[in-house]
Amino acid sequence: MLEGDQFKEECGLMAVWGHEEAANLVYLGLYAQQHRGQEGVGIVSVDDTKSEAGKYHIHKGLSLVSDVFRDFDFSQLPGHHAIGHVRYTTAGGTRLANVQPLYAEVSKGQIALAHNGNLINADKLRANLIREGAIFGTSSDSEVVLHLIARAAENIPLEEAVIQAVRQIQGAYSLMLMFRDRVMVVRDPAGLRPLCMGTLDGATIFASETCALDLLGAHYVRDVAPGEMIVVQDGVEPKSFYPFDSVNESPCIFEYVYFARPDSKVFERSVYPIRKRMGQELAREAGVEADIVIPVPDSGTTAAIGYAQEAGIPLELGLIRNHYVGRTFIEPKQSIRNFGVKIKLNANPEVLEGKRVVVVDDSIVRGTTSKKLIGMLRKAGAKEVHMRVSAPPTTDPCYYGVDTPEKEKLIASYKSVEEIATYINVDSLAYLSREGLYKAVQADVGSMCDACFTGNYPIGTPVTIGKNSQPKLL
Amino acid sequence: MLEGDQFKEECGLMAVWGHEEAANLVYLGLYAQQHRGQEGVGIVSVDDTKSEAGKYHIHKGLSLVSDVFRDFDFSQLPGHHAIGHVRYTTAGGTRLANVQPLYAEVSKGQIALAHNGNLINADKLRANLIREGAIFGTSSDSEVVLHLIARAAENIPLEEAVIQAVRQIQGAYSLMLMFRDRVMVVRDPAGLRPLCMGTLDGATIFASETCALDLLGAHYVRDVAPGEMIVVQDGVEPKSFYPFDSVNESPCIFEYVYFARPDSKVFERSVYPIRKRMGQELAREAGVEADIVIPVPDSGTTAAIGYAQEAGIPLELGLIRNHYVGRTFIEPKQSIRNFGVKIKLNANPEVLEGKRVVVVDDSIVRGTTSKKLIGMLRKAGAKEVHMRVSAPPTTDPCYYGVDTPEKEKLIASYKSVEEIATYINVDSLAYLSREGLYKAVQADVGSMCDACFTGNYPIGTPVTIGKNSQPKLL
Amino acid sequence: MLEGDQFKEECGLMAVWGHEEAANLVYLGLYAQQHRGQEGVGIVSVDDTKSEAGKYHIHKGLSLVSDVFRDFDFSQLPGHHAIGHVRYTTAGGTRLANVQPLYAEVSKGQIALAHNGNLINADKLRANLIREGAIFGTSSDSEVVLHLIARAAENIPLEEAVIQAVRQIQGAYSLMLMFRDRVMVVRDPAGLRPLCMGTLDGATIFASETCALDLLGAHYVRDVAPGEMIVVQDGVEPKSFYPFDSVNESPCIFEYVYFARPDSKVFERSVYPIRKRMGQELAREAGVEADIVIPVPDSGTTAAIGYAQEAGIPLELGLIRNHYVGRTFIEPKQSIRNFGVKIKLNANPEVLEGKRVVVVDDSIVRGTTSKKLIGMLRKAGAKEVHMRVSAPPTTDPCYYGVDTPEKEKLIASYKSVEEIATYINVDSLAYLSREGLYKAVQADVGSMCDACFTGNYPIGTPVTIGKNSQPKLL
Amino acid sequence: MLEGDQFKEECGLMAVWGHEEAANLVYLGLYAQQHRGQEGVGIVSVDDTKSEAGKYHIHKGLSLVSDVFRDFDFSQLPGHHAIGHVRYTTAGGTRLANVQPLYAEVSKGQIALAHNGNLINADKLRANLIREGAIFGTSSDSEVVLHLIARAAENIPLEEAVIQAVRQIQGAYSLMLMFRDRVMVVRDPAGLRPLCMGTLDGATIFASETCALDLLGAHYVRDVAPGEMIVVQDGVEPKSFYPFDSVNESPCIFEYVYFARPDSKVFERSVYPIRKRMGQELAREAGVEADIVIPVPDSGTTAAIGYAQEAGIPLELGLIRNHYVGRTFIEPKQSIRNFGVKIKLNANPEVLEGKRVVVVDDSIVRGTTSKKLIGMLRKAGAKEVHMRVSAPPTTDPCYYGVDTPEKEKLIASYKSVEEIATYINVDSLAYLSREGLYKAVQADVGSMCDACFTGNYPIGTPVTIGKNSQPKLL
Repeated sequence: MLEGDQFKEECGLMAVWGHEEAANLVYLGLYAQQHRGQEGVGIVSVDDTKSEAGKYHIHKGLSLVSDVFRDFDFSQLPGHHAIGHVRYTTAGGTRLANVQPLYAEVSKGQIALAHNGNLINADKLRANLIREGAIFGTSSDSEVVLHLIARAAENIPLEEAVIQAVRQIQGAYSLMLMFRDRVMVVRDPAGLRPLCMGTLDGATIFASETCALDLLGAHYVRDVAPGEMIVVQDGVEPKSFYPFDSVNESPCIFEYVYFARPDSKVFERSVYPIRKRMGQELAREAGVEADIVIPVPDSGTTAAIGYAQEAGIPLELGLIRNHYVGRTFIEPKQSIRNFGVKIKLNANPEVLEGKRVVVVDDSIVRGTTSKKLIGMLRKAGAKEVHMRVSAPPTTDPCYYGVDTPEKEKLIASYKSVEEIATYINVDSLAYLSREGLYKAVQADVGSMCDACFTGNYPIGTPVTIGKNSQPKLL
Repeated sequence: MLEGDQFKEECGLMAVWGHEEAANLVYLGLYAQQHRGQEGVGIVSVDDTKSEAGKYHIHKGLSLVSDVFRDFDFSQLPGHHAIGHVRYTTAGGTRLANVQPLYAEVSKGQIALAHNGNLINADKLRANLIREGAIFGTSSDSEVVLHLIARAAENIPLEEAVIQAVRQIQGAYSLMLMFRDRVMVVRDPAGLRPLCMGTLDGATIFASETCALDLLGAHYVRDVAPGEMIVVQDGVEPKSFYPFDSVNESPCIFEYVYFARPDSKVFERSVYPIRKRMGQELAREAGVEADIVIPVPDSGTTAAIGYAQEAGIPLELGLIRNHYVGRTFIEPKQSIRNFGVKIKLNANPEVLEGKRVVVVDDSIVRGTTSKKLIGMLRKAGAKEVHMRVSAPPTTDPCYYGVDTPEKEKLIASYKSVEEIATYINVDSLAYLSREGLYKAVQADVGSMCDACFTGNYPIGTPVTIGKNSQPKLL
Repeated sequence: MLEGDQFKEECGLMAVWGHEEAANLVYLGLYAQQHRGQEGVGIVSVDDTKSEAGKYHIHKGLSLVSDVFRDFDFSQLPGHHAIGHVRYTTAGGTRLANVQPLYAEVSKGQIALAHNGNLINADKLRANLIREGAIFGTSSDSEVVLHLIARAAENIPLEEAVIQAVRQIQGAYSLMLMFRDRVMVVRDPAGLRPLCMGTLDGATIFASETCALDLLGAHYVRDVAPGEMIVVQDGVEPKSFYPFDSVNESPCIFEYVYFARPDSKVFERSVYPIRKRMGQELAREAGVEADIVIPVPDSGTTAAIGYAQEAGIPLELGLIRNHYVGRTFIEPKQSIRNFGVKIKLNANPEVLEGKRVVVVDDSIVRGTTSKKLIGMLRKAGAKEVHMRVSAPPTTDPCYYGVDTPEKEKLIASYKSVEEIATYINVDSLAYLSREGLYKAVQADVGSMCDACFTGNYPIGTPVTIGKNSQPKLL
Repeated sequence: MLEGDQFKEECGLMAVWGHEEAANLVYLGLYAQQHRGQEGVGIVSVDDTKSEAGKYHIHKGLSLVSDVFRDFDFSQLPGHHAIGHVRYTTAGGTRLANVQPLYAEVSKGQIALAHNGNLINADKLRANLIREGAIFGTSSDSEVVLHLIARAAENIPLEEAVIQAVRQIQGAYSLMLMFRDRVMVVRDPAGLRPLCMGTLDGATIFASETCALDLLGAHYVRDVAPGEMIVVQDGVEPKSFYPFDSVNESPCIFEYVYFARPDSKVFERSVYPIRKRMGQELAREAGVEADIVIPVPDSGTTAAIGYAQEAGIPLELGLIRNHYVGRTFIEPKQSIRNFGVKIKLNANPEVLEGKRVVVVDDSIVRGTTSKKLIGMLRKAGAKEVHMRVSAPPTTDPCYYGVDTPEKEKLIASYKSVEEIATYINVDSLAYLSREGLYKAVQADVGSMCDACFTGNYPIGTPVTIGKNSQPKLL
């Protein structure tokens, strides 16, 4: 899937507790997880953890990690403890106050919070809190968590306050809460979003994906379990809490399809072999006579390798990616055909000329980009174009922390596979079946959240409270 | 007084209600009031005031108005209503979240808040609010006002909610609160900080100083009275409320001495003639045989004109100001004598050589800058140097919205006038008497706040709640 | 004269030879001379002067000194020798390649060149050089000097090469040429533009104005004489050369009227007393009954002091300058009257109301700004406005290094004094006479260049070589 | 080959003659060729080509195309004609004046020049020109070309002047010269560097690689021939000239090995199949028992595909590239092992664990990066590592426009293949033979420049003129 017509992960998380270069390591961990969020990044560190006040330090910006921290002096983020966050934002919500970690001073002291996911009862909680006198400084759903912690009874322990808070929120969340003298992480009982734990030189590390650990040379310990809360303090072993009566595991299957880096482990399994098996299953389910298999780089590459191996058709690079595409470019006034796609990918005529081509991608969202790509392949001389998608049709939006178009914009929600084939102008089109997908993952059918393919939302859809409920600071 | 060794005003305010270029006019009004705060500036506008949600828009930055709004596109701040703020910040507290206007969504809707002044019971209120579950996102004392409004009973009118809030705060404040469909301004019952009202093309305007009205060609109507709250809504006459049982007028006399622009009116009186009379009184009280009178530019100029006229001694420009001094400059490693002062002012030997010089300034804070200036005058050939200060010795810090050094750093708090004269190396030194100051202002002695000269704090000093009470997000 | 309607000096120069912080001192000297050019600044340093190659280092930018060198690390301009330049540029010619010092490698080695002034035979020389095969990389007239030096015979000494070059150029120039092991400065035989010499800790310093020496605490030695060339080398006394058969001294009188800082010496005389005497002469020549004298700040202030003293009328600040005006500001769409002027100056009604006002300025260029100012004074309540200009009418453009409008745009070139008075709407208008001007300067009438007042060009006007002669790299 | 340890192409060229959006198209063409030079970019356009003066417009910067032209307003580069350039610079020579296109006004009018390649007699020509009085403003070898054109006899036609100039220069060059009313391109008689011609909507286009044409949807016509000069003018067919008595074709074989994008044609042949055949030849020449083949992304990918196909071993992604690596990143103080490599590539343990791995790269330069990569592969569990390089050992530096380390830094110049294998710690190491390389290219052995593998320099090595010959403006 090309950027601009894709599902967008909303966040990547990173925490380092107990390392003299904590903020620098968090920065590197976010660097490795940049693919999880490219519109904003922030790091908060804390030092002086002995004194009651603590000292929090913050640096945020609305750009890539490499831009926001260019020439940054990490002595401005001192301390042995730090958490950080990269994020996407939906159009209109791009303002610095929304960039995480959020920070507040509350009854339980100071907190920095980073959140991957989306709460489905945030509007209702927010309305209640506001009615009770809370003030909201951001339009982020994550801010309700701070208020809930703030309102905990005075005499209960910090852990208990957080437990009471997370019991009130519903939705998808991997949460990091950094207090003056401890960091707490929590995964929702469905375990929708990933979160793993590692160690480096005695420090405890949390990250969304293991590729962040790999970059640091840190040791991967295990995932934070669905419904588990882990508290880390100096000089004490990490302690686990289980705030929820029951967990109902349902991790996001789309992490395997698209989001996660192929060299990561998420949900304790390696992404690369799963993604490759998707291609293999696809070849088995929907083989076709062809001369070459080409991936849509880079997200389709692993599945294409699997497809080609299984089908015994040579893999070739029929689409070449321009690695230097910036965040914006200036289009010529007179339209060059398929320009927006061409700046990123060029069809390679030498490979395509006269060939029957299988092109492998991980999804078709609106269909417009696929249509342009197919046009480029044909113009470059492809004799036949067979598109193979390494997941089922995406028919439904995500409410659990992924930025997707509305249902009516998803081409598979209103067109049959045949109609899509006609629209994007391919000789044949096939998607991996739901069964094939689970086979590739090696999991029981239905054991993960696959709502974007099925509309089955394991923990329900958002509670709305009427129009105009959303604050509009732009 | 040269920048760097001075009392610093903490804010300038500007509001425009009911003008299609509201944000642009606020920008210009802040431009005119840049002398009131040079480290941060923000503007919030609101449009779509009919719908219940309203739409707030914000632009902030940590620099001068001309820098933060360089090439700014004002269509990003649409709407007929806007408020803005310029501010100083104390070292360490410089971060964007603290730049005003503050914004929050609360039970009474959305609010933008701008505050000039300082609350003396903010720490206590904050501690209480936090205990009750409030979350604080800034280290600003102004944030408590948002919380107090947020906690008002659900069924009371907006005006009543604000009245209940301001009744709880103590200290110096000129406040602007912009709601979706109305703006409210309040001055504390002592009227410590200025706030005036004007009109332009049917729009209502509020500003700290009238120079902001002059730039727009707006008509000055009157000051907001001490203890008065004014509410402005579309299609309704501005309405006044008087939340306080009693007012005890005590406006800041230092506005006349130093802060306000000489072409402004503050507290309904023109600054220029008052400041000039200070010089005249000073000449009467502390005349001396001399050849020339020179001001310390630019703040001492008006008083120097008064002094020279009264004394019948010619005014000359013995210190020339470099108008292009940026916010920082790179000093040579080997110390050039008095360098920090010289980059801003140069002694003019042609004027000073062999002369008996009266140098007029508005205050001596720490004494270090005055000492350097006198050194420069002597090096340039002055035969005698007589320093005359157009206000009494500044012996006490301000707790009402002015950034002053601690008492023990104020030279007049620990040295007699003779000792100061010796320290800064002048042939004679005299300050204007308290009586002379009030005579120049044409007000009864003691009718204004003169705590920085007397230590008499009309509304008391801050309520402290123990060390470590201050949050430490840096 | 307000910026935007004024004559513009084209350059300020600074050289430091033989100081371990040479570049930093040059930077400070340019800082002090920022009023001589605000659109570009550059510094070139040289180290390793023993080796035949030398090492030149350069930093340039198109902005104020404080912007271009913000956070600059002066270790990037190493060496004991440096020259620098600030400049105005005419519209369209603003590009970095034109910012001086220019740099080139030529037959005589490497050179950095800084030039204040304007050559009147540059077009002709350029055309000849180009015909002979020279390539020009800038549109600056100064580049011809590099070519002329480059073409000197191989076996002649460096000094002789420079002498041969300057003998070919005609016009106004104070020149600095920095070679690997020596710096040479030259003033044209008419001495049109200033250049002074000083010393600091054994280093030799050259600057356009003495205020640059004052800032460093350097000792002023003397001016470089008209037609003199001085060569400074390590370990040798500065050596003077006189390349011209005759000198015909004719320094620019407008330096005294407007350009130079009042605390500077130029042409070996202090500016301040001269400028003040202009006001005094003006009061004698063209006195008028009035209540107050007000300057147009800041350039009219010194003359206004002289006028007020001589006339015995009190000086007041009737126009207040906003010190924070940036290089651009965003105007509101609907026109606020006189906006462009008002952002810089505000009329002070308290001073002006009901008064007969003498307003003193140094010149009237196009007349438009003066007209707006007078309008502001009247609107602020002035009963009568009498304008007094501390120099004769400016009727003719400058070809010697000052950026002036074309003759037909100078109001005094096509309107009589009475007509100008009517146009700008004053009750009376008077200019200082040419005789009065020379009296103030204490020089013989006609002994300086006063072409802008008389059209008498002491060294002639530019040699043009037909249209399209100007290269057009924009 | 990873950036940081690689051979660096020095330039990419782009010209558009006769299109209303000329500059925008040049920008896009440079965008597509960003891989040819990432440290500087410039575009020069010309309009008003009828008038004798013409009007040149320029924009340059020291960064990536997307940075230098971010938010750029292309109306500042008006005209139907434009040329542009991307470049690498060697350390120390990074300054804006050296960024091309160079511009100068010369006897033949104004010229903008862009050059890909390197002149081997530039020092000598430069010395001669300087001796004759030329001034050099850059340290670029390309500037001599401007001087040679400038010195052509007055009465000869422009084409003749350029012909005389190029006959004097020796070395590698693809040159673009834009005059007011025509553009000329020349390739050196050995045709060392590529240059192709295309058309779009009647406009003539020149580019280094055809991928630039593809992006615009332009039609590829043919290559400019070695030793050919083409002149393009409005309303006239492009005209060819052949300035040289003989051509001795010897195009750079390394373009096929590494520089060119795989979807480009250079020297009239497609890169992709050639590069893939290199992998196939390599498998034939140096097969090895193994479980998987992995490329070093991205430059090794195409050869790896060829190798895997020929060897019948599955291709896998054992090294994952981080696509968001900025130009700099902040390393932690305490060394993380192999950090510099890891920020760009991560070894994928899931793929490598327990496997016998063939890793395919295009070259080994210093050996340090390869050593780190192998270390990462082993740490990730690879049981055996066999490195295969798709070209012969690089033993000699390039003098023809590629930035290579000195000979003594090239590991293959001082170590045998066995020694290199030991140093980088592989189980086996093999390079493609020279014969195999030519076979892949389908060209006669020795028919191209392969000096970096053989030390046979087809047009000789640079003429040096003694030390200190290089100017040193840093």
